[in-house]
Amino acid sequence: VTPGEWLGQQRILALRERSVRDAEGVAVVEGGRFAMRALQSGAAVLGAVVARELLGKSFGARLSSRLALERVPVRRVGAAEYRVLSLAAEPQGILLIVRQRWTPLPEGVSRRRDLWVGVERVHAPGNLGTVLRTLVAAGARGLVCIGPDADPYDSRCVRGTMGAIFDLELVRTTHAELSSWCRRSRVFVVGSSAHALRDYRSVSYRRPALLMLGCERGGLSEAQHELCDKVVKIPIRGPVDSLNVAVAAGVWLYEVVAQRHPPARSARRIP
Amino acid sequence: VTPGEWLGQQRILALRERSVRDAEGVAVVEGGRFAMRALQSGAAVLGAVVARELLGKSFGARLSSRLALERVPVRRVGAAEYRVLSLAAEPQGILLIVRQRWTPLPEGVSRRRDLWVGVERVHAPGNLGTVLRTLVAAGARGLVCIGPDADPYDSRCVRGTMGAIFDLELVRTTHAELSSWCRRSRVFVVGSSAHALRDYRSVSYRRPALLMLGCERGGLSEAQHELCDKVVKIPIRGPVDSLNVAVAAGVWLYEVVAQRHPPARSARRIP
Repeated sequence: VTPGEWLGQQRILALRERSVRDAEGVAVVEGGRFAMRALQSGAAVLGAVVARELLGKSFGARLSSRLALERVPVRRVGAAEYRVLSLAAEPQGILLIVRQRWTPLPEGVSRRRDLWVGVERVHAPGNLGTVLRTLVAAGARGLVCIGPDADPYDSRCVRGTMGAIFDLELVRTTHAELSSWCRRSRVFVVGSSAHALRDYRSVSYRRPALLMLGCERGGLSEAQHELCDKVVKIPIRGPVDSLNVAVAAGVWLYEVVAQRHPPARSARRIP
Repeated sequence: VTPGEWLGQQRILALRERSVRDAEGVAVVEGGRFAMRALQSGAAVLGAVVARELLGKSFGARLSSRLALERVPVRRVGAAEYRVLSLAAEPQGILLIVRQRWTPLPEGVSRRRDLWVGVERVHAPGNLGTVLRTLVAAGARGLVCIGPDADPYDSRCVRGTMGAIFDLELVRTTHAELSSWCRRSRVFVVGSSAHALRDYRSVSYRRPALLMLGCERGGLSEAQHELCDKVVKIPIRGPVDSLNVAVAAGVWLYEVVAQRHPPARSARRIP
């Protein structure tokens, strides 16, 4: 396969289908910031499509030299063709084909500060992307996808991560495998549910933990629920049913950060 | 104006323009859940467009009787025409025209537990909507829009609120007016910025407070900055620049909730 075919229009458009992406084990990453983050974090970049007219001048030059340095096959196109390939509202003139990177559940005892989020299904890919961005911001280790549904390499998810997808371990596993791993590795599994009685702040996260997130509509599945050592709720103090799933994940992840890394000395006001 | 004209296709499509919405002081609310929430929370509903084929049977009947009860002018259309009017991915067959509701800054001393968010500009209307949903969940009082830019009645914002927009006080003000109100009412104004040194958890929010949010790209404006008594940051522990603005607002608002409403007894682990 020459770079021309590998990076041809038909093929890149075909990669919008999850089945095609998964069969090839690749994903499309679009935009200058994302491309730079992919390169910096050591993602396996298989090829690039670049429209120089759309790239900012100095940034485009930096990216180009970086692509050359890494010997990435580049196909140059005009702005019009780039716009056909792009899903962005304001196409920036660069997209990369990267290899999907999946890691197995780490063997042996989990590190003391390990923090994971587990999902089975998240309805809106953009929400999942925002969760991943927050995971990285919170210093978490990775995302555990239980079963086949969640797709972190959906382009809308990748966009929502703001590039953070390259800084996480992504795991695909089954309920059974996860259950046995959590027991073996002594990972504390906490679910969140609107129906729980326990406040999310009243458990201790100062141990390896996996926060189990349900989907926007139905919450935790029964199988997810069974994996949890505890189930907690984020209190709702007004006439809404729930928080947005990415906001809920953020509030919860930052409670873990707050417990593990309190601000300097006695500066934090204790209620 | 007869309901036919008032609810005609041209007019409703014209309301997609902010200038038209603002000139008439109205907004469009779409979807069964949103319509019901608007009716329940006492919004001034000026008219409705209903496509019975698209509405679920029992829910449609409940909504219809509620609309009749409130003497709301209703225009019935077929599914095809409704789809022309709708901005929803899965049109549910009901949209309402509601009156925009704005309130002045409350006079006199602020209530002890008052909590506001202040914005000047939020780039993505969906993000602003998610902030409003979280505001209601956190039991906050309202949103203060400083200057003309932020538009909570943008349809993408309204959608992001999941109906919560009707449960908040919405204020439009200027920097000068807000500054004098905050001093007079002893409202503690805290900004958030990636460049701040102080951790967001190390200030006390157990007093009337306004959390000042910057925009996704540039953060706080200089004028916003000047309004702040303190500026704090949410710590970032991994290789991302920032949190999504709605996630940041959620983490911050729930720190306020945590300080004001600690979970029962000593259940909360103190670091």
